[in-house]
Amino acid sequence: MSDQHAKRRRKVLRTLHERGLDCLLVTHPPNWYYLTGFTGESGALVVSGGATTLVTDGRFTLQAKEEAPGVRVELQQGALYAALGEFLRKRGMKRIGFDPGQWTVAQLKVTRKVAGAKCRVVEAGGIVEQLRKRKDEQELAVMRRASVLAGDVLESALKLLRPGVREREIAAEIEYQLKQRGASGPSFETIVASGARSALPHARPTGKRLRKNELVVLDLGAILGHYCSDMTRTVYLGRAPKRVRGWYRAVEEAQAAGVAAAKAGVICADVDAAAREVLKKNGLDGYFVHSTGHGLGLEVHEEPRVAKGQTIRLEAGNVITIEPGVYVEGAGGIRIEDDVVVQAGKSEMLTRVKRDLIEI
Amino acid sequence: MSDQHAKRRRKVLRTLHERGLDCLLVTHPPNWYYLTGFTGESGALVVSGGATTLVTDGRFTLQAKEEAPGVRVELQQGALYAALGEFLRKRGMKRIGFDPGQWTVAQLKVTRKVAGAKCRVVEAGGIVEQLRKRKDEQELAVMRRASVLAGDVLESALKLLRPGVREREIAAEIEYQLKQRGASGPSFETIVASGARSALPHARPTGKRLRKNELVVLDLGAILGHYCSDMTRTVYLGRAPKRVRGWYRAVEEAQAAGVAAAKAGVICADVDAAAREVLKKNGLDGYFVHSTGHGLGLEVHEEPRVAKGQTIRLEAGNVITIEPGVYVEGAGGIRIEDDVVVQAGKSEMLTRVKRDLIEI
Repeated sequence: MSDQHAKRRRKVLRTLHERGLDCLLVTHPPNWYYLTGFTGESGALVVSGGATTLVTDGRFTLQAKEEAPGVRVELQQGALYAALGEFLRKRGMKRIGFDPGQWTVAQLKVTRKVAGAKCRVVEAGGIVEQLRKRKDEQELAVMRRASVLAGDVLESALKLLRPGVREREIAAEIEYQLKQRGASGPSFETIVASGARSALPHARPTGKRLRKNELVVLDLGAILGHYCSDMTRTVYLGRAPKRVRGWYRAVEEAQAAGVAAAKAGVICADVDAAAREVLKKNGLDGYFVHSTGHGLGLEVHEEPRVAKGQTIRLEAGNVITIEPGVYVEGAGGIRIEDDVVVQAGKSEMLTRVKRDLIEI
Repeated sequence: MSDQHAKRRRKVLRTLHERGLDCLLVTHPPNWYYLTGFTGESGALVVSGGATTLVTDGRFTLQAKEEAPGVRVELQQGALYAALGEFLRKRGMKRIGFDPGQWTVAQLKVTRKVAGAKCRVVEAGGIVEQLRKRKDEQELAVMRRASVLAGDVLESALKLLRPGVREREIAAEIEYQLKQRGASGPSFETIVASGARSALPHARPTGKRLRKNELVVLDLGAILGHYCSDMTRTVYLGRAPKRVRGWYRAVEEAQAAGVAAAKAGVICADVDAAAREVLKKNGLDGYFVHSTGHGLGLEVHEEPRVAKGQTIRLEAGNVITIEPGVYVEGAGGIRIEDDVVVQAGKSEMLTRVKRDLIEI
């Protein structure tokens, strides 16, 4: 992978050159992993034309040398941001890009103070995130496996669903299975939300027991080879009444419309609108209280956002979720979520589990 | 608990009054939970004499009203930090405390811009963290249970240790058991590090299989009722050779010395030194590459730090870990870690698992 990493760093350097920056400070772990392969938990990467350098402490120097060939490793003396400031001062960096969304006020203050008056920090947010949006073939190969893994675990978890089992027990089983099958962990805290709780899009699993004639929303993802998957299926414990079937069909159709709309060149807001429009036709748009989807990759929420007002166009190689839902307070919720790769034509569906209403 | 929360807020107000601040902005979730009981994931708490207000979005307003009686809930319109700025402007707040270690540069910029020139932000870090150091009886009761839970899970995980099992499988089993027994999750990613990997204090579990005649370090913790526990035991797979027994005895003695030194009024650095001194006597201090311990509570690492150079004095009600270790590159590592409550006299040991070398 080190050629790939070097290529990505060259892209960053081109942007720095265009903006007249001497270097970019990268302190967000998914970003330094993307640019170097370094998986350590503490450090600061300085991407610059001379040589890209990782400042990190003694716990990680050996690991950095192994994981990030072509990157200089600078042993951090003392606190990280002071060491970084000292490095910038010594190297005579003058115009220094940083991401204001990824630095605390205290970190910036220390770094600037030690770097000295000749160093000028300049806001330069989102440079690496822009690159990360377009996945290459190696990344897509890993993401396919991460999506399939989540689907396999979901299918095996369905066998546990029965009245009397607690939400938390099912969530624990899902996360256990994810790891047993090779995931380094869940990509977020698994959601198992039943009955009226299924109407809360961000419900955390509780000690509540499943009951007959309830909806259950299962939302889970795997981290595999550093990449995230994310999927949701909705189950009815028993035979679903007509009203629930109606909601389900509308969400299913909305989800299919979102997937069909997701093509390179299409504006993100239009994908959101495609799904939302179906719910509107069914008189259910008032019950769809979140956005249609989000980018997926090294982080479970990344660019692009598939939401109202997002005027960015999808590009081939973006990986996004499409996850409309309907949430009726007191009654329950339904959500269907898949991971898709945007292409020029029909998008590639990464999630392999059927989308029908599951009645158990 | 709402009386307790109101009492804690009054303590903050006293500090604000002393510093001439109109309010304190609290954006770190453990801090707002400590002051209000609110468990939502997004918001900003404004602690002020008039009325403490939580600015949060529609997903959390109902929950906030239920969980945080006595706190006003302000529905956030638009993005969080802009809404917060607007709130500060409308209320005419003039001197506003914030923690520079908990705000990004971008968040502060937006808030100040919307709040307007009449609002002045003032650095005021660590106010809530200082209060959180001293646990009250209710907090200690929860923490006792969290420590016992971790110990129970560790003891049951020992039964799985045998040559051929993968580190990752044991870690997955531990986290599954934590949840099955009522923890909301592990308080950090469980460490199972075997053979030469046990010499890495921050090793993450891998696909490596345990082998006969290896050391295995198991480091785990539970989150129970929002409070964290943290413990480590070291196992030898087989009959430990003399050299390993010597290391183990030294770590055991160092740990006991650290625990014995941890009393109210003692300087943190002296507790660190008490443990380190024992390893030095055994010629092993060069292999003890981290600090002796850390505070524990709503977060798994909090104040006070039990390390070299820490001149703060322990107080009754502090909960700290004592966790010396010896790490020999290529050979393996040993660590013993317990949670203790600092008192005027002998400290209370929360971890209930024996400290002897475990040979399996």
